[in-house]
Order: sequence, then C-alpha cells, then structure tokens
Amino acid sequence: MKTETIKWVKGSIRIIDQTLLPHKLKYIYCKDVPTLWKAIRVLSVRGAPALGVAAGFGILLAVKDYPATDTRQLIKKIYDTANYLATSRPTAVNLFNVLDRMKRVAMANCRVSPSRLKRIIKEEALHVYEEDRTVCRLMGKSGGKLIKKGDNVLTVCNAGALATVDYGTALGVLYNAHEKGKRFKAYACETRPLLQGARLTAWELIRAGIDTTLICDNMAAALMKQGKVDIIFAGADRIAANGDTANKIGTYSLAVLARYHRIPLYVVAPYSTFDLAIPNGNTIPIEQRDKQEVLGFAGQRTAPGNVKVFNPAFDVTDAKLITGIITELGIIQPVNRSNIKKLFKHKT
Amino acid sequence: MKTETIKWVKGSIRIIDQTLLPHKLKYIYCKDVPTLWKAIRVLSVRGAPALGVAAGFGILLAVKDYPATDTRQLIKKIYDTANYLATSRPTAVNLFNVLDRMKRVAMANCRVSPSRLKRIIKEEALHVYEEDRTVCRLMGKSGGKLIKKGDNVLTVCNAGALATVDYGTALGVLYNAHEKGKRFKAYACETRPLLQGARLTAWELIRAGIDTTLICDNMAAALMKQGKVDIIFAGADRIAANGDTANKIGTYSLAVLARYHRIPLYVVAPYSTFDLAIPNGNTIPIEQRDKQEVLGFAGQRTAPGNVKVFNPAFDVTDAKLITGIITELGIIQPVNRSNIKKLFKHKT
Repeated sequence: MKTETIKWVKGSIRIIDQTLLPHKLKYIYCKDVPTLWKAIRVLSVRGAPALGVAAGFGILLAVKDYPATDTRQLIKKIYDTANYLATSRPTAVNLFNVLDRMKRVAMANCRVSPSRLKRIIKEEALHVYEEDRTVCRLMGKSGGKLIKKGDNVLTVCNAGALATVDYGTALGVLYNAHEKGKRFKAYACETRPLLQGARLTAWELIRAGIDTTLICDNMAAALMKQGKVDIIFAGADRIAANGDTANKIGTYSLAVLARYHRIPLYVVAPYSTFDLAIPNGNTIPIEQRDKQEVLGFAGQRTAPGNVKVFNPAFDVTDAKLITGIITELGIIQPVNRSNIKKLFKHKT
Repeated sequence: MKTETIKWVKGSIRIIDQTLLPHKLKYIYCKDVPTLWKAIRVLSVRGAPALGVAAGFGILLAVKDYPATDTRQLIKKIYDTANYLATSRPTAVNLFNVLDRMKRVAMANCRVSPSRLKRIIKEEALHVYEEDRTVCRLMGKSGGKLIKKGDNVLTVCNAGALATVDYGTALGVLYNAHEKGKRFKAYACETRPLLQGARLTAWELIRAGIDTTLICDNMAAALMKQGKVDIIFAGADRIAANGDTANKIGTYSLAVLARYHRIPLYVVAPYSTFDLAIPNGNTIPIEQRDKQEVLGFAGQRTAPGNVKVFNPAFDVTDAKLITGIITELGIIQPVNRSNIKKLFKHKT
C-alpha cells in the first residue's frame, strides 16, 4: 500500500494529517503558506526529509500566483517566505537547507522574467521531491544489506514513509530487506511524548506486512538484555560535521544502551541532513516543546498540572556511539569528521 | 499533607484508589478478600511494601468473621486465602513473604482457640503495618544523608507514600532530606505504560512541597548528559540473594545509563523485599501485563490494534550496576551476596 506523505496536487500541497493517524487517514490541502506553517508546527507533517520537501513546495506555493511585475519583487517574496517558514521548527536542518537552496536558485535566476522564475521554482521544488524518493531508495538498498534473515530490528520515532515523501530513511532500510524477501522482526519504540512510534511507525510497518512489536521506550534496555535486538536503525534531524547527530528524544538513550549491550546502531540520513557548518553536536539548536505534551496525551491530562516539565524534542548522540551513517552516497563508518568530509567532498 | 495509602478502618481495608490519581483522591473499602484481590490486580493498590501490608490485612479480613468452630478450620481458611491472594500478582515478593508470615503465625498458634487466633492474626497484620511505617522512616534517614543541598535527584515509577503505608522507600529518602531543610530538585520519570511517575510520584512530591520536574522515560539519558542528574533512587519488587533487583520496567535502563554517565544509583528496599531463596535475577518471575496498556494512553487507543506488544511490568537490574541498597538495617555497598548475607544474618 503506497503512502504518499506529501505531494504537489493541483496547485496545493497535499499532506497526510499525521496527528490523526493511526485512526484516520485524512489529507490536508495547504493552499497558502500560513496553513503549511501551522501543519509543520503541530506536526501534521514532520520528519526531517519531509520538512525539506515541504519547504520547497512552500516556496512554490508562495510564488505560484504572486502578482509580481518584476523579478526582484518575486525574489523578495521568496526570501520573505523562506524567513517565515524557517520559524516553524528549529532543529531539522533539511528545512533550512532546502529554503537556502530555493533562495540560491532564485538569485541565480535574477535576470529571467517573473513567469520564467516561477517555472524554475516549480521545477526545483519538484526536483527536491523526486530526489527524496530516489535518495531514500538508495539508502534503503545500502542499509538493507545489513539486515540478516531472522534479525530483530529496533527503531525509534518514525523515520519512515511518513517522514519522507513515500519510503523512509531508517524504515526504508527495513522496506528494502522486506522487499528482498528476508524475514525479520521489527520492534518500534512508542516514542513519547507524541507517540510517533506507536501511531506512525507501527501503522506503516504493519501496512507493509512486516512483523512488528510495539514497546514503551523504557523497555528497550530489557529487550536488549534478553538478546532480542540485533541491530538498530534511527533517522536524523541534523548531523554536525563530526557526525554528532540530533534525532528524536530517546535516540541518545538507545545509543548508550546499544553500546553497553554491544549492538550496532546505524543512523540513516541523506546528505541534506548534514549541517557541515556546525562543528559538533553542542551547538545544534534543540527545540523545547510545550509542557502539555508531557502532562498527558491527546488532550487527556494524566499528571498534575502544577508539575514542571522537561520536554526537549530531540537529543544529540555522540558520533562515537554511532556504528555508521547510511547516506545516499554510501555508509560513513567509522563516523568521524574526515570520513564525512571525504564522502561529501564534491558536494561542498 | 498525610497520605494514608492503606489502613485498617472499622473492619475493612481502606485503600486509596490509585487508578484515579492525580485527578481524584478516593478511597476503596475492601470488605471481602475478592475485592482486595481485584484492587491488587488492577493496581488500585500497588508498590511492593504496600502489597505486603495488604496481604496481612487480607488474611485478617478472611478470618475476622469466619465462623470457625475449631482452630484447624480457621488455619485452613488462612492457607486458602493466602493461596488465593498469591495469584493476584507474581513479582513483588513482599506479598508472598507476608502471606508466609501469616501462615507461620497461624501454625505456631494451632493450639489456641479460634477467637484467640483471630486476635493474634489481627495483631500480626497491624504489626506488619506498623513495621512498614517504622522501616520506611529508618531507610529515609539512612538514605537522606546521601542527598546534598542543590542536588538533582532522579526517581522512577512510584516508590513513595503510595507504594507503602504512608512514607515511601525511595521517596522516603527524598522526604527525609526535605524535612531536614535541604533544597534539591526532584525529577520523576513518567513510567510508561501506567504512568505511576506522572500520576503518583509527581502528585505526592508536589503535595510534599518538593521542587519536581516530570520527564518522559526516554529523556533521562539527555538529562544525564546535560549534568542534571546527581543521584538516582529506585524502589524494588524483589531482590535476589546476590543483589540482582527486579523493579518497575525502565529501572535497568536507568542503571545502564547511570553507569555510563558515572551517576550513583541506589535501590531503597526493606528486608521484606529480599528473596534469599533466589540466587540471582534470572529466575525472578516477571509479570507480563495486558497489551492494551501499551496500545493506548490513559484508556485512549493510540496504536493500531493489530500490532504485537512486549509489556513486562518489571526488569532486572544486575547487582553490579547498583551503587548500594538502602535497607532498614543499613546500606549494602558494594552490592554482593556476602554483604547481603552479613547484613541479614540474624534474620535468616
């Protein structure tokens, strides 16, 4: 069953409203940029690569019917929109990378007509979309080889079709192994507070016909101790130049536990997730989210309202705790500054 | 504010219905043993020491109005009740220890009249109750010294007043430090799936006036990495002869994370939590609970219903990962078979 997370449909951005999953598969049509901004903020669309695609489509949405009489006006609109969309969420660098890319394309074409620039912007946004589809399958192919028949594979949050256009980063690896006919067991961490593992990963893995078991986040260590985890795959929201990786809160916890139990942990992320301007994980901005998320779930309060809350959306896993980073250009292993530089040298 | 978790009130067992906290403070009056059995099963009353007290009161409830014409009949009733209550939950050994204790008292008094034996049973049950109050305060005093002014103290699940008669094991340590006027910050892991940390620990710590912050279980590692955890206190449901400790799921996870971050982790548990007949943690029976607990959150379904679930109520922390075990007789440190034997030699 195909999962089309984000798509350009008849002049609007069609996204699956992930806040309603797994109960309802419903689409939101963003016909203006503020609707997209809100969809990003409330996590109707989420996942670093999907946010990159959303950024491209967001710029397209802004310029499509914009009545610019000259190209400078149109470029200003693109810059303003990029600045606005950049305020939606702070951690996933793919969002910023694609916004920068759209701005660069606009500047490089500052001498064409407004209508020509609109066409170029559309091509570029669709290119980002197609790239994601290709890149996810390349990473899946590369990582899929690491899963052996009978393995127990653990994952966290949702780095699947729902975090990308339609295939996934970490889950793309599982999909590839599954497509190759390998039988394995998947374990999904539910991923509090917003339960992306329970709501999204369990939903899409089962839809794909993969044998899936859900666990609470605090059960991962017990599972490892029982020898029921052979390999771990996680996504990423931003990777620093030395390989330190920001990903959904709980990833660092899994990495420390995996090291203690001698279990390999791979990060699966495209080049667009790397922020080579940041030397290490200490300076990656970490989004702090609303305390209500921890006090309950889906509007149902479970904790006393007067308790304080610590609610970082992400944590940073040190490069030394990551076995390898699977990218569309190959696997970085061991994870360090020079191996990252080497792989991406023609890109920088 | 006093929290009276379990109390013998006018011929019935009065317990706080913990399934309704923190929203409602409501009491259940158990007037017969099946009502108590169910209250234990659904976790209206929970926490290893409180289950021990409940076991004593349960036997008292069974014999109180039992129309026995001879003492053998009464003893049979006590044995039958003990066997029945033993089926309520499998892991907390305090329950079994107190049931055995009541049976031993009955057998030791097999020659007294039925009415005399009823009085002896009542005295013994009330003695178990009073012992818990004393023992918790002794552990609190002993452990309280480990908390320094300004410390950040992490705890898991609820090992507080609500897990005992009225003071707590791990939280008793925090209460002692607080009573001594030390200012410190408490962090409570919410403890999925049943959220005893969010619902119970946050509630009682705030009631006691302690500065409390709630975190999701997967945030503990990030908190440690940021240097915001100085010491960890956990309760226990069963401790093997070598010090391996079964406690709420997630405790083992914290212990591994604490070791990596060089943070001391103490278990706080009375002698009644030790099961010296069990050589190590591998043979502690671990309760597997219903999959519905993991599929949802506070009764609200959040995951697809057709996913498999792994839901152990407890995990086992290896003795080597525990800095010390705080008991009413002193602190066992380092945790090993011979130190445990030494401390309890006059008891065995």
